[in-house]
Order: sequence, then structure tokens, then C-alpha cells
Amino acid sequence: VRSEDSLTAWIASRTAADRPDGLLVGIGDDAAALSFPAGMAVLVSADSMVEGVHFSFGHASPAQVGRKAVAVNVSDMAACGGRGRFITCQIGIPRRIGEEVVRACLQGVIDAARDFGMALVGGNISSTEGPCFIDVTILGEAAPDRILTRRGARPGDLVVVSGRPGESAAGLRLLQAGNASDDPSSARVIARHLDPEPRQPLGLAAAEMGVARAAIDISDGLALDLHRLCRASGMGARLDRASLPVSTDLAAAARRLGIDPVDLLLHGGEDYELILAVPSDRAGELSALANAARVVLTVIGRFAEGSGLTLADGQEERNLSPTGWDHLA
Amino acid sequence: VRSEDSLTAWIASRTAADRPDGLLVGIGDDAAALSFPAGMAVLVSADSMVEGVHFSFGHASPAQVGRKAVAVNVSDMAACGGRGRFITCQIGIPRRIGEEVVRACLQGVIDAARDFGMALVGGNISSTEGPCFIDVTILGEAAPDRILTRRGARPGDLVVVSGRPGESAAGLRLLQAGNASDDPSSARVIARHLDPEPRQPLGLAAAEMGVARAAIDISDGLALDLHRLCRASGMGARLDRASLPVSTDLAAAARRLGIDPVDLLLHGGEDYELILAVPSDRAGELSALANAARVVLTVIGRFAEGSGLTLADGQEERNLSPTGWDHLA
Repeated sequence: VRSEDSLTAWIASRTAADRPDGLLVGIGDDAAALSFPAGMAVLVSADSMVEGVHFSFGHASPAQVGRKAVAVNVSDMAACGGRGRFITCQIGIPRRIGEEVVRACLQGVIDAARDFGMALVGGNISSTEGPCFIDVTILGEAAPDRILTRRGARPGDLVVVSGRPGESAAGLRLLQAGNASDDPSSARVIARHLDPEPRQPLGLAAAEMGVARAAIDISDGLALDLHRLCRASGMGARLDRASLPVSTDLAAAARRLGIDPVDLLLHGGEDYELILAVPSDRAGELSALANAARVVLTVIGRFAEGSGLTLADGQEERNLSPTGWDHLA
Repeated sequence: VRSEDSLTAWIASRTAADRPDGLLVGIGDDAAALSFPAGMAVLVSADSMVEGVHFSFGHASPAQVGRKAVAVNVSDMAACGGRGRFITCQIGIPRRIGEEVVRACLQGVIDAARDFGMALVGGNISSTEGPCFIDVTILGEAAPDRILTRRGARPGDLVVVSGRPGESAAGLRLLQAGNASDDPSSARVIARHLDPEPRQPLGLAAAEMGVARAAIDISDGLALDLHRLCRASGMGARLDRASLPVSTDLAAAARRLGIDPVDLLLHGGEDYELILAVPSDRAGELSALANAARVVLTVIGRFAEGSGLTLADGQEERNLSPTGWDHLA
């Protein structure tokens, strides 16, 4: 019989082998009880994934949907220099979705939590007459004096971005255009969209080395999220078009789609890369940071007095609109 | 212009005056950072409210919806003997809902958090093509050795219930039948549905006095939630029909609806009352507990060896089906 209690019991059975440090009371009670090390700050963040907005069961497997719901939250922890410890998962289940799909999705959540060094400790199951939604709340920890926030960038600091922004948006557009992953390059950018790799090692290493004054993760587009970091820091930023890390795969996908790869890179979103504000006298440490975090880091510009973003292209410099994904626009 | 950032800024402005203890980083960053007192366990729980399932904007004001989304989570904290400290709120907003409705709803969340001694510290805004949903995650605290769980009830322990279960379900049915609150009694039970009062003082006092061996809150119906407590404790329970606290208002509403008030009391749900397992030698402390928590407490039966629930009615005793609200049934 399909019931909340049977699904909860199944979840409890799938997580019973996890005995994470600090778990006092786990799944199956009114609340989970957790113990954090003395002196550590508790970080909390939450992100929703809504069917038809953030994902489609036509493009992603249920396990990929569950995994991504966790990964986007780990990305928030990374942006704060914190380490995820526990998650709760709240799922809204439409009647048309079978129990096996729900279980595969939750198994994706459970597996991803484990892969990222965390445990699923609670949540909620609800029905819905609309699209499926999965809300994950993540609890992490960080030393209070090492928390990275969006405030703190100063004029002259380097704008550093990790990895290959734009590929996720290219992958989404290939999926939407009905392009199967029929060549390795397309397959890679599609995988970047369906299975993003949050930069937790980078966030931890940046906080540990004290090399960044501010950070944010890119969920809604590099330009928009950089704008948010700038606004929180009371800064502007000037980017250099020639420095933007247009990858070979991004260029190939953009060519196939007939769009400018730089547009995808700046305004695409769902990259889950990090933007760091790095003092210019710490630039020499960037390669050590990149090695420690096993990710490419690219200096794409500098923070500057004032507000707003500009993009320099050779001798020309134009205002860069902080547009990206906005749920309410 | 309607945008996520403008709504986030509005939320930040509405909570700026709150300076809760332990808040290191609040709304507007990738994660909130919180400090808990050394030695306290962090309790975390989450509940979703979905339009068309848990609420209707035709019955409840947006502020009531927001308030209830918080209250049901406070109820989970109460059931664990904990005190809510912080919440995050994840909201899914359909295009048809105007900004003023969203703001009123979020103001309800913010006001309720404050009324319950907590602060809103983060969350997420998403669009949805389906019904509105509001997920609240609550972080609370409790001394690790005083956490109440569902495990621990023993044979002979008293089954104690707070307040007036059944009234909320009666209020919902009056609303669904199109009965306005045209008399004071109906108005009271409707208010019990739209604006439940979680029993945080009771949970705290019960944990403080050490008078309960186990506890659960009633979200899906007294019989179903008691069954859950019994299962977790490896117990059964025997209830006494004559002891069930059928209130005057519940009786009046049930008469008007043409249904048995005891059915509403046992299987209605959304009561957000607590069920406590109290050793019989502590029965003498129940009136002090009730006074401390300012709530009526009623002994409705006893826990017993075995499993399953029975309902005694004079000389007769029948099995009591643990039915109630199930999202997946």
C-alpha cells in the first residue's frame, strides 16, 4: 500500500547504515537532533527544484533530479567556505508519479548526500496537485572567523571564477532543442547541466587559505551573481572579454546552437561555479588554490569603485547588464 | 519591477530590526550562519504547505497561510521538547499570484517567527507552474539529555493529549461546506483550523519537568499519530471513549455537519496538539504541567504491551484503525 509511513520507513531503511558523527536523533521522529562541534557556526541554506522550472523528467533521470537537488545546496555551502553535514528533503509528489520514480529520486538524494560527506536526517512528504517539487535544506559548519560572505570585495581585487561557466546553459539548450548527446562534446555539456559538480573543495580551501575576501556561487548567471556580490560589497566590477574562459565544449555547443558562447557564459546560469574576490597581492596563491581544489581558476577582471558591471573588449568598454535567470521576472 | 532580488531585499528590510541572539550572517547571502549555545543539540525539522492540499486562498488570508506554515513547524519542535530559534522559508510562487499576496504571506511568516521567539534567516524563492507551496525549515535547540522522542512509552503509561483535538478538522469541514463563521462557536473551530496554536510551552515544560517518556504532535489525526508513537515505542494503546475530550464547540460543529465528533477527534488531523506518554506515578504532576503550559490535559487511555490501538466503550472494546490524513493514500 502506498502511504507516507511506508515511504518514510523505506527512506529510514536506506539511510540506516549511515551513522554520521553528531546525529543524535534521525529519520522517523518529529525533528532530527544534531550535535555540532563546540565553537563552530552552523550554516543553513535551502534551495527548491520545481518540475517544469528547474528540471524535467523527460531530460533527467529521477536519480539525477535528486542528486542535483543536493548538489545545488552543497554549492551554497561552498560559497560560504563551509562543509555540508546534514540535509533534510521536502518532496511534493503528484499523483501521476509512480512510487518507483519517487524512490529513485530519493535514492539520488541519499546517494548524493553520502557522496558529499553528509547524511539525510529528515524532511517531509506531501502530495501536490501540481508539478513535483524537491526542497533540500542543508546544514553545514564553518569556523566563525572563516565564513565567506558576499560582502568584503575591495577595489582592485581580482574577479576569479572557477571551472567552465556557460556549459550548463549550453547543455540545457541542447536538451531543449532535442539534441541528444550524440557526440562526446555535447554529452559533456549536457552532463554539466544534469549533474553539476559543486565546488566544495574550492570553497573550503579558499576559506582555509584566507585567500578570498568574498564569494558567491553562480546559480542564476555569472553577470547576475557577480552583480549581487558587487552590490553586497558596495563595489562595481570590470570584466575583460578576452579573459572569459570559453571552453572548447562551450564554443562547439554555441556554434551548434547558433548563439554567442559569451552570452551563455555571462547570463546562462546553473553553473554552480564560484566567483571569488581575491586581493591582487594574493594572486600568486591562485595556482596552489586551483591545485588544492582540483579546478581551473580564471581571473576575468577586477572589482572597482562605484557600482555596476562593465565588459572591456579591446579598446571598447560597454556596460554589462546584470541579467540572468529571475524566477519572478 | 517584480524580481527575486527586489523581493529578497523587501524580506531583508522587514526582518532588519530583528537582531536575534546567535545570528552571524542573515538574509541575503548564500547561507545563514548561526551560533548555538555550547552543549545544546540542534533540532531540525521541515514541513510543507501546498495550496489545494493544505490551504486555500479562498479560506485563509495570505497572512494566515504564512503564519500556519510556521506554526506547524513550531509544533514539531514542541513535540521534541525543543525551542525554535530560526527558520528558513522556501516559497514556490505561481505567476497568477500577485506580489501583494506574496508579501502578505511572507509577512505572516515573519510575524509568526517573531511571535514564537524566532527569526527568519534565509530561504529560497522559486516560480512554479502549479500550486503555491511554502516550505518552512525550523532550527531549534534542546539539551541533549532532555529531547523527547517517539520512543520510550512503556506499558501502563498514561496516554495524555493536550487541548481540543478534532476542532481543527471540524473547522475545515465547515469551511468546505461553505459555512461562514456566522456564530461564535463555528468561528472558534474555524479559527482553530486556520490559526493553530502549537504547544511549545507544553513541550518545553514536559521536557523540563521530565514528566513524559515520549511525545508526538498530532498533524494527521490522533489515532494515526498515536499509532506512530506506539510503533516507535514498540507498544500498543487502549483508549477510553468516555475520556475523549469532546469540546462543546466540537460537539456543536459535528451536529451541524451531521458527523460523529469522536470521528473528527480521532481521525481529523491538523490539531497540532501533543500526545504524551506519562508514567502513571507522575500523574499527580499533570495539573502542574497543564498550569505551566496553560493548556488542558486529558488522560485518554494507557499504553499496553503488544501493538495496535483499541477503543473501550463501556463493556465493549473494539480495534481502532490508525487512519488519518495520508498524502500518498
